[in-house]
Amino acid sequence: MSILERFSLNHATTKFWDQREAVEACAETGSGIGLWREPVHQMGLAETAKLVRDAGVPVTSLCRGGFFTDPTAEAIEDNRRAIDETAELGAPTLVLVSGPIPEGGTIDTAREGVAEALAALAPYAAERGVTLAIEPLHPMFASDRCVVTTLNEALDLAAPHPADAVGVVVDTYHIWWDPEVWNGIARAGAEGRIASFQLADWITPLPAGVLTGRGQLGDGCIDMRRYLEAVDATGFDGPIEVELFNDEIWARPGREVFDQTRSAFERVLT
Amino acid sequence: MSILERFSLNHATTKFWDQREAVEACAETGSGIGLWREPVHQMGLAETAKLVRDAGVPVTSLCRGGFFTDPTAEAIEDNRRAIDETAELGAPTLVLVSGPIPEGGTIDTAREGVAEALAALAPYAAERGVTLAIEPLHPMFASDRCVVTTLNEALDLAAPHPADAVGVVVDTYHIWWDPEVWNGIARAGAEGRIASFQLADWITPLPAGVLTGRGQLGDGCIDMRRYLEAVDATGFDGPIEVELFNDEIWARPGREVFDQTRSAFERVLT
Repeated sequence: MSILERFSLNHATTKFWDQREAVEACAETGSGIGLWREPVHQMGLAETAKLVRDAGVPVTSLCRGGFFTDPTAEAIEDNRRAIDETAELGAPTLVLVSGPIPEGGTIDTAREGVAEALAALAPYAAERGVTLAIEPLHPMFASDRCVVTTLNEALDLAAPHPADAVGVVVDTYHIWWDPEVWNGIARAGAEGRIASFQLADWITPLPAGVLTGRGQLGDGCIDMRRYLEAVDATGFDGPIEVELFNDEIWARPGREVFDQTRSAFERVLT
Repeated sequence: MSILERFSLNHATTKFWDQREAVEACAETGSGIGLWREPVHQMGLAETAKLVRDAGVPVTSLCRGGFFTDPTAEAIEDNRRAIDETAELGAPTLVLVSGPIPEGGTIDTAREGVAEALAALAPYAAERGVTLAIEPLHPMFASDRCVVTTLNEALDLAAPHPADAVGVVVDTYHIWWDPEVWNGIARAGAEGRIASFQLADWITPLPAGVLTGRGQLGDGCIDMRRYLEAVDATGFDGPIEVELFNDEIWARPGREVFDQTRSAFERVLT
């Protein structure tokens, strides 16, 4: 089996590429796709669901829910809608980015908010056959985007809930620096919590716009093959998404980026 | 006792302020000072040592050694010189920033290099009465500046060596995001390894030049008082350095920044 059979395009890699064209390219190449809520809403949920179903393209995740460090009724309600959308798209997983430190709070109170939100959402997700995937983001985003920063922290947050309701995202870009990362991956696998596996590379120097400086696979310092081996060693054999937030990549034609990304994926993983 | 009696100016906060004027301001206010090797070399080691001795200003640390992820003979030799300088300045502590991932290496091999370098340097430091202080830096610097990213990792690296030879730096700016930070501080204290305590705040949004975007105390999201309580709860009662790498602060007159920093220090810690 070629590693390319596990390739899934996270649509954010080709952020400005029409969703329909992206799905068609995935169908043609036997790839999966990770979708984002905004383009799905733009096309319409039912029409997107029909598009991927007719094309036979598996939706490997929906991005993203979360932003519930202040778990207001609106935040919970929006995440319930995101769970419904995930189910309607036939995707197994909703990716959760936890959100920032709320006004007047601290990172500790924000983390309590995340735990509270998960408790409110996990049963709803389980009923609909959706796994919530807590994504630890790189600590440089800890104040304004995601207070969850390590795999072990994500696993601790997931622990009170069944593994089919709450798992974690293993995204190389966000966790590669962590001295506990190999233990974290082994633990995530042993606990059955690897709900999504995503790749992006860390390039040096860090681009000025840190949000959109994720490197193409092979352009940075992350040993992708070692991550593949570590994740697979836990028994995981699911799809592998490539998710690159990168201004230069976004400026190029979607199909060109798609083909180049598949090539890079094959090259770094074999 | 006023908290200001523990204030120490890390000279990097007033990077372009003449070292002599900085020492004089510290003498006048009963402050300590953390010195940097470059300005010390510029003034001359013996002259700097005389300056601080005559002024009665305690040198709370010398910054910095390290950059030994590829522990070549030159790197070790340079660190031996830094240890000698620390001793001659009468400072208890040499701060170590570990360095980048070397060409052709990985973060794991780089970490092995750090362990090797520490083994080569610890006995030399102990002989000269200098404590090497391993500083975990924020993970956004993990590829190009410091492969050591958490207090627990720094403590694991210190563990093979006597606590008076190898300790760690607790710097709020670098570790505030870590879900294990309170455990890490308690462990560092219990193991007698807190060799330096430094403050800087994390501001949002992260400035584009991430190296020089550390916030004045109180301008960001870090609960400084909680850090003081956590560090002091271990029995630590040493000096507290303020170390701000910040382009806007550097552009202002040194004495103005000095006074403002002391005020901010007193305000956030009492």
